[in-house]
Amino acid sequence: MLPMPEHDIDDLDTLRRRIHEFAQARAWDRYHTPKNLAMALSVEAAELLEPFQWLTPEESRELGAEQHEAVRQEIADVLIYLTRLADVLEIDLLEAAADKLALNARKYPVDKAYGNALKHSCPPGDSDFSE
Amino acid sequence: MLPMPEHDIDDLDTLRRRIHEFAQARAWDRYHTPKNLAMALSVEAAELLEPFQWLTPEESRELGAEQHEAVRQEIADVLIYLTRLADVLEIDLLEAAADKLALNARKYPVDKAYGNALKHSCPPGDSDFSE
Amino acid sequence: MLPMPEHDIDDLDTLRRRIHEFAQARAWDRYHTPKNLAMALSVEAAELLEPFQWLTPEESRELGAEQHEAVRQEIADVLIYLTRLADVLEIDLLEAAADKLALNARKYPVDKAYGNALKHSCPPGDSDFSE
Amino acid sequence: MLPMPEHDIDDLDTLRRRIHEFAQARAWDRYHTPKNLAMALSVEAAELLEPFQWLTPEESRELGAEQHEAVRQEIADVLIYLTRLADVLEIDLLEAAADKLALNARKYPVDKAYGNALKHSCPPGDSDFSE
Repeated sequence: MLPMPEHDIDDLDTLRRRIHEFAQARAWDRYHTPKNLAMALSVEAAELLEPFQWLTPEESRELGAEQHEAVRQEIADVLIYLTRLADVLEIDLLEAAADKLALNARKYPVDKAYGNALKHSCPPGDSDFSE
Repeated sequence: MLPMPEHDIDDLDTLRRRIHEFAQARAWDRYHTPKNLAMALSVEAAELLEPFQWLTPEESRELGAEQHEAVRQEIADVLIYLTRLADVLEIDLLEAAADKLALNARKYPVDKAYGNALKHSCPPGDSDFSE
Repeated sequence: MLPMPEHDIDDLDTLRRRIHEFAQARAWDRYHTPKNLAMALSVEAAELLEPFQWLTPEESRELGAEQHEAVRQEIADVLIYLTRLADVLEIDLLEAAADKLALNARKYPVDKAYGNALKHSCPPGDSDFSE
Repeated sequence: MLPMPEHDIDDLDTLRRRIHEFAQARAWDRYHTPKNLAMALSVEAAELLEPFQWLTPEESRELGAEQHEAVRQEIADVLIYLTRLADVLEIDLLEAAADKLALNARKYPVDKAYGNALKHSCPPGDSDFSE
């Protein structure tokens, strides 16, 4: 028997369409308001946090196989909900990320931010990659 | 003057490399333990939640221009941290998402899950897209 | 045999001491850095969110017995971690809350905030009860 | 002039009533569905996480005055929303916490959990203080 390809999702747009079909086939549109999708995404982001909560930073770099797989599944869940939310709001993920990186490059120029991810003169709420 | 192209990030792998370069140029590797990246991602996911917290589900479908842009930036932040975390853990985002969708199709077959995103016989902790 | 009282935790300070003893007895101090405790609290807050994610606002007011009990346990978890974190940081919970309510009363005077929990002229990041 | 007492909130029940009055005076009941309150709480829990995200565990034990005050305000926000949510759901906070501690003592007996906050034979989703 020929080996089956694992999957054929080669880019974000294909992922977007597959998730859309998945939700449509189950008539889940009514649950997928942006508000609910943002909630679900944030629940998954916390599930992604949980395996790390009692680990030291170094331990977090050396996850065992079981933990690595659990984290991999939670990362997948976050991407799935993020893609769905962006789809429902008609936001292009890569374009949004590219624009944000460009903005961050201006907010955190190398000469100011070298070796220092901590907030300098910004109000509370800023973190290094974002505003 | 010729219009500048917005950006040239056409796929997730290019995004991954740009974020890697961004962090390297600022010597931020020491901050980017998986634990810290998971924390930062979860902070951004909550920032994404905030514009929706007092809106009704219907209002959440009709964001004004300013709110839509704020949400777009938070979506970008989540994708940036997710991509960075996956990079540090050597996880392929699209492959992980494809595997998870396949798993979900088995856990939530159309005949059981049609019109019903709520948990049926699963223990607390399950949501519709994920385990 | 006389029925044992359910518990004898009548105030926050007693709760604080019981949690301290619980952690001490298990030699868990080394895990309980403020950073880790904040992470754990945020994981529990998301577990508290999860039962609500696909419910309409009205449905969320009418939880079934099983869901109500699940929510009750997650509320307990959040309080336990919050109390522990405040203890480790030597913060008095009621005093902090009272000060914050006083601050909120000034930021959201009744004449401005009546019937409107949405942000008016505040920068992103503000919600109604907090800054 | 005699110094005014900072506040007169000496117990959780008084805090509960003050928050209720605060929301009533502003006609905010319609926003305070359990779903929205759980969302707001989870947003505040992430704001509490943010000051810690790039700190080492040791640094997190030695916050500067400004950071300590920021954390104190976020802790207050979490308590305020938790108290409000419990009030709306008619859940007694201390009773719920006491019951949960008793449950945890059974799930994490000292002889098994001594020096080890990590999950032993529990399914993913368990953390040390909670189920």
